[in-house]
Amino acid sequence: MPEIRQNFITKEWVIFAPERSKRPEEFKTKKEKREVPSHSPICPFCPGNEHLTPPELFSIKKDGNWLVRVVPNKFPALEREGEKIRSLKGIKRSITGVGIHEVLIEAPLHNLFIPFMGEEQILTVLETYRLRYLEAWKDPKVEMVLIFKNHGEGAGTSLEHPHSQLIGLPIIPTDIRQRLWDAMRYYDENGECIYCRNLEEEIKDGERIVMETKNFVVFIPYAAYTPFHTWIFPKNHRCSFSDAKDDEMEEFARVLKDILLKFYKGLNDPDYNILLRSYPSGKGTERFFHWYVSIVLRLTKSAGFELGSGMFINTSLPEKDAEFLRSIK
Amino acid sequence: MPEIRQNFITKEWVIFAPERSKRPEEFKTKKEKREVPSHSPICPFCPGNEHLTPPELFSIKKDGNWLVRVVPNKFPALEREGEKIRSLKGIKRSITGVGIHEVLIEAPLHNLFIPFMGEEQILTVLETYRLRYLEAWKDPKVEMVLIFKNHGEGAGTSLEHPHSQLIGLPIIPTDIRQRLWDAMRYYDENGECIYCRNLEEEIKDGERIVMETKNFVVFIPYAAYTPFHTWIFPKNHRCSFSDAKDDEMEEFARVLKDILLKFYKGLNDPDYNILLRSYPSGKGTERFFHWYVSIVLRLTKSAGFELGSGMFINTSLPEKDAEFLRSIK
Repeated sequence: MPEIRQNFITKEWVIFAPERSKRPEEFKTKKEKREVPSHSPICPFCPGNEHLTPPELFSIKKDGNWLVRVVPNKFPALEREGEKIRSLKGIKRSITGVGIHEVLIEAPLHNLFIPFMGEEQILTVLETYRLRYLEAWKDPKVEMVLIFKNHGEGAGTSLEHPHSQLIGLPIIPTDIRQRLWDAMRYYDENGECIYCRNLEEEIKDGERIVMETKNFVVFIPYAAYTPFHTWIFPKNHRCSFSDAKDDEMEEFARVLKDILLKFYKGLNDPDYNILLRSYPSGKGTERFFHWYVSIVLRLTKSAGFELGSGMFINTSLPEKDAEFLRSIK
Repeated sequence: MPEIRQNFITKEWVIFAPERSKRPEEFKTKKEKREVPSHSPICPFCPGNEHLTPPELFSIKKDGNWLVRVVPNKFPALEREGEKIRSLKGIKRSITGVGIHEVLIEAPLHNLFIPFMGEEQILTVLETYRLRYLEAWKDPKVEMVLIFKNHGEGAGTSLEHPHSQLIGLPIIPTDIRQRLWDAMRYYDENGECIYCRNLEEEIKDGERIVMETKNFVVFIPYAAYTPFHTWIFPKNHRCSFSDAKDDEMEEFARVLKDILLKFYKGLNDPDYNILLRSYPSGKGTERFFHWYVSIVLRLTKSAGFELGSGMFINTSLPEKDAEFLRSIK
C-alpha cells in the first residue's frame, strides 16, 4: 500500500509509491563521465578572463591571485539601481524589479567542485557567502536574500565553472511567507522552534540520518519530496548561518564536502540544487526560524500531477536512501 | 528594468526579466520532427494489445471498436482498495495511500493527438473525462480529483500514445487548500468570484487574449509563470466543467483543438502539461470557485532560484506571447 506523508515543517504532502519504487543504486545517473579541464580559455569565470564579467564587487585573494570572486550577474533577474515602486491597477499588481543578483565564483580552477576542494577553500567560499549575505541585507529595498547553487545541466546551470548565486528580492515570496507564518504559529502554540523539534525527532528515530557530527545532522526528511532530497541542520538554534561560530563553520565545510562526495560516488555525479535557507538576526525570526541547507537532486522529472497538485510522488523511501548513503564511504 | 508581477488569483510573484528575454519565435523547440506511426505493435494502449493493460473500467465504442478506453494505471500512485487511516506520531504524519489512479486512452490511433482529432473524437474524450470525474467523486475516500495530461518527454510522459490521467486523492493538497481559501476570502470581501473578476479585466485589457469565442476565453495570464503559460476560462461561472452544457462542451472541444494546434505550428510541437482545475457542485465551492484549464509549456528549466523561492523567472512577456499566438493561423 502506498503511503502519503506530510512534511512536518512545510505541511506539504508527498506520495510514496513502493510499487513504482526503485532501489537506491538504480538512481545512479547514466551520464558519461568526462574529464573536465582545470582551465577553459572561453570560460568567463576562469582567471585571465576577468574582463568578460561585469566589474568585480568583492574577492578574497592570496599571493596576488583571487581564491573567490564575486561579480554582478551579467543577465540579472533584478536590477541594482532604481526605485522600488508598487503598482495596483485592478488585477495588475506589480513591483519594479529592483534587487540584487550576484555570482559567487567559488574557485579559480574550472573543475574544482566543492567535493574536491580542500577545507580551507570551502571555508573561503562560506566566508564569502556570509559577507555578501550580510551586505545584501543592508539594502533597504531587500526583503529576502537567497543563496543557491545549480550543479549540472539538469539543475539548470549554463556555466560549468563552480559558482553560486545570490539574489536579493524586494518582496517575500508567497511560499516563504507561508512557511514563516506556519513556523511562527507553531512557536506560539508550542513554545518551541518547529525545526528544533523536527531535528530532535529525526535524531531519536535515526532511520533517516545520513551523518551526525558534533554540531550538524544530515538527514533525508521523513516526507522528502524527491529521491535523496537531503537536509543539513545545525543542532544549535540560530536563525542565520551568518551567526555560526568559527568552529561550527569549519565543521559545516567538512559536512558539506562529505555529503556531496557521497552523492558523487554513490550516484555518479548527479545534478543538484543547493539552497541555503537563512534569515538574519534582527528581523524578528530569531526564535521560530532555524537556518538549514536543502539539497534537491534532479533524478526525476515533475509532470502534470506535480504541477496540478503542488504535491510530489517520491518513488524512493527516505529510510532506504539514507541507508544507502550511509554505506557510501 | 525588470518587473515583478503578482498573480491576482494565486498570489504568486513572478519576475519578468526583459534583459534575459527571448522573442517568442526563439522558443520553438529544436527537436527533430519524426513520423509517429498510427499503430505500434509494442504499445499497451494500441488496439490488439488490450491484454497488456489491467482490465478495462470503461469505454466508449462505435461499431464494436473502442474510441476511448479507461484502465487502472498499471503502476498506480494510489491504491483503490484499503482503508483510509491517518496516523500522527510526533513529526511522522501520514495517511494510507488509498485513492484512484486511472489512465484515459484518448484514441485507438497511436498518433492521433488532440490537435489532429476530429471534434467528435475530442467530445468523446471530454465526455469520458466528465463521467470518470463524477464517478471518482462518488468514492467517499476521495477529497480531490485531478485530470491532467502529459504531452512529450519533457513533460514527464513515458508512453507516446495519446492519453490522460485521473487521480483521486484522499487529501486536499496544501497548495490547493490555500487557493480555495484565498478564493473564498476574496468572495467574502468582494461578493464576487475572483476568477470572474480576473477574466473580466483580462478581456477589458485585451493585450493578453489569444482567442475569444462565445463562451470561452484563452489568454496568457498577466503574471504567467513561464513562457506561453496559457489559461482557458469559460465565461459562464461554474465550479465544475462537468456542469457545462452540451453546446459549451462542443465549443470547448474546438477551443482546445485550436490552441493546441497553435502551439504545434508556432512552437514546433512543444512538450506540455494540461491541467483541468475543477470542483464538483455540492462541495460548497459553487460561488467562489470557477473551473478552468491551465496549459504549462515545458520550454524552460527550473533551477535553484525557483526551488528556493517558489517563484518563477519568466524570460518572455505575456503580451508578446499572446500577440505571437494570435498571429499563428
